[in-house]
Formats: sequence, C-alpha cells, structure tokens
Amino acid sequence: MKHLLKLMDLSKEEILEILNLGDQLKYEQKHGIAHHRLEGKTLGMVFEKASTRTRVSFEVGMFQLGGHALFLSSKELQIGRGEAVEDTARVLSRYCDGVMIRTFAQKEVEDFARCASIPVINGLTDFAHPCQVLADLMTVREYKGHLEGLKLCFIGDGNNMANSMIVGGLKVGMRVSAACPAGYRPSPTVLEFAQSMVKSGAKFELLSDPLEAAKDADVVVTDVWASMGQEQQAEQRRRDFKGYCVDQAMMQLAHPDAIVQHCLPAHKGEEITEEVFEAHAPEIFEETENRLHAQKAVMVRLMAQ
Amino acid sequence: MKHLLKLMDLSKEEILEILNLGDQLKYEQKHGIAHHRLEGKTLGMVFEKASTRTRVSFEVGMFQLGGHALFLSSKELQIGRGEAVEDTARVLSRYCDGVMIRTFAQKEVEDFARCASIPVINGLTDFAHPCQVLADLMTVREYKGHLEGLKLCFIGDGNNMANSMIVGGLKVGMRVSAACPAGYRPSPTVLEFAQSMVKSGAKFELLSDPLEAAKDADVVVTDVWASMGQEQQAEQRRRDFKGYCVDQAMMQLAHPDAIVQHCLPAHKGEEITEEVFEAHAPEIFEETENRLHAQKAVMVRLMAQ
Amino acid sequence: MKHLLKLMDLSKEEILEILNLGDQLKYEQKHGIAHHRLEGKTLGMVFEKASTRTRVSFEVGMFQLGGHALFLSSKELQIGRGEAVEDTARVLSRYCDGVMIRTFAQKEVEDFARCASIPVINGLTDFAHPCQVLADLMTVREYKGHLEGLKLCFIGDGNNMANSMIVGGLKVGMRVSAACPAGYRPSPTVLEFAQSMVKSGAKFELLSDPLEAAKDADVVVTDVWASMGQEQQAEQRRRDFKGYCVDQAMMQLAHPDAIVQHCLPAHKGEEITEEVFEAHAPEIFEETENRLHAQKAVMVRLMAQ
Repeated sequence: MKHLLKLMDLSKEEILEILNLGDQLKYEQKHGIAHHRLEGKTLGMVFEKASTRTRVSFEVGMFQLGGHALFLSSKELQIGRGEAVEDTARVLSRYCDGVMIRTFAQKEVEDFARCASIPVINGLTDFAHPCQVLADLMTVREYKGHLEGLKLCFIGDGNNMANSMIVGGLKVGMRVSAACPAGYRPSPTVLEFAQSMVKSGAKFELLSDPLEAAKDADVVVTDVWASMGQEQQAEQRRRDFKGYCVDQAMMQLAHPDAIVQHCLPAHKGEEITEEVFEAHAPEIFEETENRLHAQKAVMVRLMAQ
Repeated sequence: MKHLLKLMDLSKEEILEILNLGDQLKYEQKHGIAHHRLEGKTLGMVFEKASTRTRVSFEVGMFQLGGHALFLSSKELQIGRGEAVEDTARVLSRYCDGVMIRTFAQKEVEDFARCASIPVINGLTDFAHPCQVLADLMTVREYKGHLEGLKLCFIGDGNNMANSMIVGGLKVGMRVSAACPAGYRPSPTVLEFAQSMVKSGAKFELLSDPLEAAKDADVVVTDVWASMGQEQQAEQRRRDFKGYCVDQAMMQLAHPDAIVQHCLPAHKGEEITEEVFEAHAPEIFEETENRLHAQKAVMVRLMAQ
Repeated sequence: MKHLLKLMDLSKEEILEILNLGDQLKYEQKHGIAHHRLEGKTLGMVFEKASTRTRVSFEVGMFQLGGHALFLSSKELQIGRGEAVEDTARVLSRYCDGVMIRTFAQKEVEDFARCASIPVINGLTDFAHPCQVLADLMTVREYKGHLEGLKLCFIGDGNNMANSMIVGGLKVGMRVSAACPAGYRPSPTVLEFAQSMVKSGAKFELLSDPLEAAKDADVVVTDVWASMGQEQQAEQRRRDFKGYCVDQAMMQLAHPDAIVQHCLPAHKGEEITEEVFEAHAPEIFEETENRLHAQKAVMVRLMAQ
C-alpha cells in the first residue's frame, strides 16, 4: 500500500489493519499517550474544493502525530493552471513526506500519484471518499463490535460516498444494499466491482425502493442530495429524491438497534429529518471524530519510515 | 470561566488573574523560559473578517504554548452557508481543544459557545473586543503600576472597542469617561451595565465633548472612525467625528504622564494625529504585543486541563 | 547581514557561508539528524503574489528547524490597504522573529525592512529573487564541485531571475553571459553593478544572440517569458522571444556536461523544450529542493540568536 486513492485498491486485511491502528491511535489520544509517529514529517494538503472536516482533521492529525500539515488551496497553488500536474507532483515530492488531495476528477489524483515519489491520499474526488468510509467502518465496529455480516444500506445519491461505501462495505464482508433514484446510480465501475464480489458470495443489491433497502439494516447511511457544486440542481434533485428522506418511518423498518451515519454537512428536512438526525447525533458525530483517528492511521501506514 | 465571550461575563478577579498570568507568560517568553502549557492542544480560528493582529497573535501564541492554531477562513469553512452553527460547533468540538471566532454578530459567538463542548473565545464581534481590552488593561498596568482609580477616557466611535473598554475599565475599578458623537454612542446594554456599576460607586460619564472627557485622563483610548465594512460611510463619519481627533491640544488637557492606546490600524490625521501617535508609539505597540501575552493567558486559563 | 533583500547587499563570503550552511542542513535533513536551530521561533510569510515553491519551502523549512511559519496572504492582511507598511512592520516585529515578503515593488520590501526590528527576507520582487539564486548556486556547486570560473548563461527575459543570477554569479566568481531581446534587458542597476565588477576583472557580457551566450556554458539558466501578472502580454512576448528557446541545438553549443536550471513553473515548448527539460529534470528538481535547504540556511543566519 503506497497510496490511498480508492478503497478498491486495498485488500480486506489492509482495511482492517487501518481500522485497528485507528482504534489504537484513538485510545492513545484519549489517554494522553504521546504518539509522535510522524515526528518531523510534513503533509501537503491540496484543496480544489472547500472543506471543514477534511482540512481540520488532517491538520490536527498531523500535529498530534508530531508532524505538520500545509494547507494549500488551489487559489494559491499554480497546479492545474500554468503548471502541469506532473511538475507539481515532482515539486511537492521534494518538500513534503506526503500529499492529501481534495479535488474533482479521480484521474487528477491518480495522475498525481503516478508522478509523485511520496504517498498520495485521496481526500475526496467525484468518484471516491475513502477516508470518510474508513471512518464510517471504524464507527460501525465501535458501535456493533464487528463488521462481518452486518447489513449496511445507503439511501440517496449514488455519489462518491455511495461508491466508497459499497466498496468498503463489501470488502469487509458486510451485506450492502443501495437505494438510488434512476439517474443517480453509483458509478458503473463500482457496480461492476460489486457484481464480481457477488459472484464470490458477497451480498449486494441496488434498489430503487429506499424502504426495501432499509429493511433490517444495521447501518443506515445517507448524504446530501446536492453536493458542493450542484447547488443549481437542488430544486430538480429535491423532486427526484422524493421518498429518499431518512425519516422515522424508514428507521422503523431497520433493525431496532440500527445506527445512522452521515458524513455531514446535513441538510435536515431533506435527506434526513431533524428528528432522526438528533436521535442518532451521538454516532454521527463519533463518525465525524473518527475521520481524525482513521486518517491518522492511514498517514502512519503510508508515511512512517 | 468556561468561555471568553464578553468582559461582562467575567468578575474583576477573573480579569486580574488573566492579567497576572499574562505578565508571567510575557516574562517567560522574554527570558526564553519554555512554557508549553498547551502541549498537543489545537485551537480552531474562525475568521469571517480579515485580520492581522488577531490572526498572528493567536497563531504565534498557540505555537509558543506548545500547541497549534488552525486558520479557518469563512470562505473555506461551510459555517453559516449550508451548515448550521450548531453542527459546526459540534464538529470542531470533536477535533479541537478550543475555538476563537472573529465575526460580526455577537449572537453567533454566543450560539456557537452554547453548542460547543470546548471553550470559545470572542476574537472580535460588532459588540465586543474582549481580547483587545485585556491587552490594553495589561499595558496600562505595565505603564502605571496599577489600574484602580485611574481615569480612562475613550474618544470616538461607540463601537466594540468602546463597549469593551467601558466594561473592562469599570470592572477593574477605573474611572471611565467616553466621548462619542450623537448617533455613535456605545451599546445600550453597555450603558445599562455602566449605570448599574455607578449605583455601586463606580465613576462613569458619557459625554459629547471630547475635551471634557480627556481632562486629567491617565489613559486616552481611541479607534478608527470607520471600521472594517463601514468604508462607504467614511465621508459621512469624517464630518460627524469632527473635533474627535486625539491631537496635541487634547493631550494637553490629559494628565501630563497620560498614555495613549490604539488597537490599530490607525488612520493618522483622522482619529489621531501623526504627532500624537508617534509620541505614544512605544505604548501603542506594547499594547499590540500584549495581545499575544493576554491571549495566551486566556487560552491557558480556558484550555489547560 | 541583518536582512536578505537582494544579493547585491551580500559579500562573496556571506554568500558562500550560506551555501556551506545549506549543504550542512541538507545533510542533516537527509540523515535524520535533528537541527532545531530556530526552536520556538516564528516567521511571518507575507504573500501579495501566488506561490507554490516559496510558500511550501519556507513553511516546511521553519518546521524542520523547530519553528513555525505563518502564511499571511495580502487578502487577509491589511498591509498596503489601510495600514501603512511602517505600522505593519512594527506590528509583525512584536509577534514574529522574522518576516518573508513576496511582493511586487522592491521598494516595499526595503521600506518594510527599514521599519522592522526583525530580519526581513525577500521572497521575490519584480527586481530580485535572491533565495532562488542561492538555491541555484548551491545546485551548481553540488553538480560541479565549485563555482569560481564556471561559465553561466542566462537566456530570456531580463527579469528578477536574470537580475539576481547576474549579481549572484559575478559575486561568486563565475563568468556570466546574458542573452535578452531588446526591450527585455536586465535592470540598469544590475548592469551598472556588473560593469563595476568587470572593471575589477569579472567577466560579464550582455548579448542579443542566445546561441553566442550559450557557447561553452557550464550552466544554462532560463525562466518563463511571461511571469505572473504578464499573462496578457504572452502573445507579444512569444514573438519577441523567438529564438530564445533553450533547445537541443542550443545545448549542443554549451559544454557537453552543462547543467540546466529553471526556477519553475516551466512552459515547455516556449522558453525550454520538453526534451531539454526532461533530460535535465534531475538537476532542475534538485534546484527546486535546494530552495528548502538554502532558505533554511538564510533563516538560521538571520534568526538564530
């Protein structure tokens, strides 16, 4: 494991190792045990898209590990405008010990990784959100004690979160169902991957009825209907996602102890009701916090030594 | 003391404790005595308004205390746009050990504090500027040896600085006079507070004659006539503040050893003459520096343990 | 040596001391030898112009030296707008241990330094780019073992890079030739300096034929034809710089072991062909990396003790 570009590249064992290390680093942090495993190391954080959680969790994480993260917004960088990705990758490889990139095209992160001599972490692309899903899996395991065999359902837009959730869930042995409206299905690459997993015994279903998807679910995951940059489609999407709101009625179909995950920000009243959100706020904000611990684990795995 | 939202919330003892700790931290810094009292801690700094002194003094302060400050501009955060204040507060509470907010409405800082589980520091609102006034009080005490009984006058716009200066001055036992043109008086909340203090023996007067206010003053405080965001009113304000310029004539009415305080930036030739500014530059830039030490004291009080 | 404003201010010995210290710090960094020579110190970095290399190399450098660098963009600072340079200089002198400024007018950096009580480093102005040239000299010495007597040629726009390269090259005893089209010659101040050096035996020639300049050169240096802010002149400049592209034909006139230096970003196909760039990529990216080490040396020289 040289980079973290998408969960598809990782084996089940690599994912579990990250979760285990995440648990350990969380324990050390909570108990004031110093864990400067990246002492003197630097992470360049390249942002082509605004962010709260990603920025703060990576920067705090590097600091807690004894290192330093640099916030580089695309406005200040010359990447993509004037300077080719391959040159920026070679430049940052000379100064930093790792790079986190939050951008639009998955191809950009993959190109960057190919040209860089340092580890590259996908901090969010249109295709994948591996760090978030690692945090989600860590949270589910915290609440449920295990992952194997649990039913996870994703309700809503077949976006990067859906893509990574399906892949991550199936990789660790969860039963995954996704309910997405027509025209908002997950990436064909992901559906193809899921089908290949099904052939070797995994459980996956893509549905258009969210209530069916939620049935007996141990974990209900959703995300905003209109992600950053899609604000102008919000009205159209509100119509298209009618019935996809995670509400009390839907939760009653899920397992009585089901937990809810949401990567935030939440548009309460749209993809999730205020009532469900607040009832499940403890695990949702635990999920938020676990971004920190899971990403620290990723960085230690990639950047230590 | 869980937060620093406005000086009105603090007792005289709490203010003096911060000043004492500020003096001590200044001594340690000047003598190269390490004081990593916030080792491993992180402060989120949320800016909805540009800033030099606030940004630099908090970031340097956290570093000198062994911690790390994150600069989060509202352009990059999703706070206020898409994400509710309460969710941002809960998110940052999971990553950081404290938050400093520089914004417009005092309500926003108070709301944030109510939802956060970590200490919140008001880095400037339209209503209050407590950190600046703590630095001012620290500077006055450095120059005068004590605070009790000194006469402090504020000349100019009844803005956040006036509000906090009146409250801070009265809290520590100074005699306070404020001269503000009609239409530019301090907040009614502050005037009400001042009246309640007067009832228990404090000295406070609100005047429209700046020369009368400056009479025998030990400390003369002023601020720009048009703060950030009021640039389009600059012309009107220049007319309205005629006679409120702190000049040599006004200073001759003050105590011969009077010091001048200005939170900067200064518009020399408007609220203060170049001559007075430069004659009092030593204490004005000491005041600037004391932002660092006073804020370090605030952070240690709120965030250590 | 109190500041680094331009190489003209430095003696040959001062330049060589920086290069020596740069070599040493590079060795320590590569071998994991801690070198916290600026423990607890802070550097303010003021940017009025976008930057990748300058930002990252200074920030990483301060961190590796045990200090902390603050990224202050002019958008967030009040410098130049509302607050006079002299006041900003006095303010930052109270908080930081040094300042790096990347701006347009050399005068601004010089004014800042005059008012500041802390060291000021020129991170790039329209007139000079001393940090880049120190990195270049360090790289040349790494590849050639010495500097004295080598022939350095600069091909292209007589900009800040040309200015500093000429001064730096002559100072350390190199033979310098510069080929610049009419209307794009180096600064008269620099040419005057070069003439005065020639009188004491230095070798310098300003040519309009790039092939003649490149003849037998040990080091070929070039830079983009249209720097940041000159994009609208790009078309005109492409015409004016016809024949100034560093290509294989030009390199065949240079010494067979000649190295190429380019401060990046490169516009391949304009000032340098892709072929030449990639053939010389090892020393070009070594030059990039040496920004880090050379600047760490500058900061240690100016800010330690």
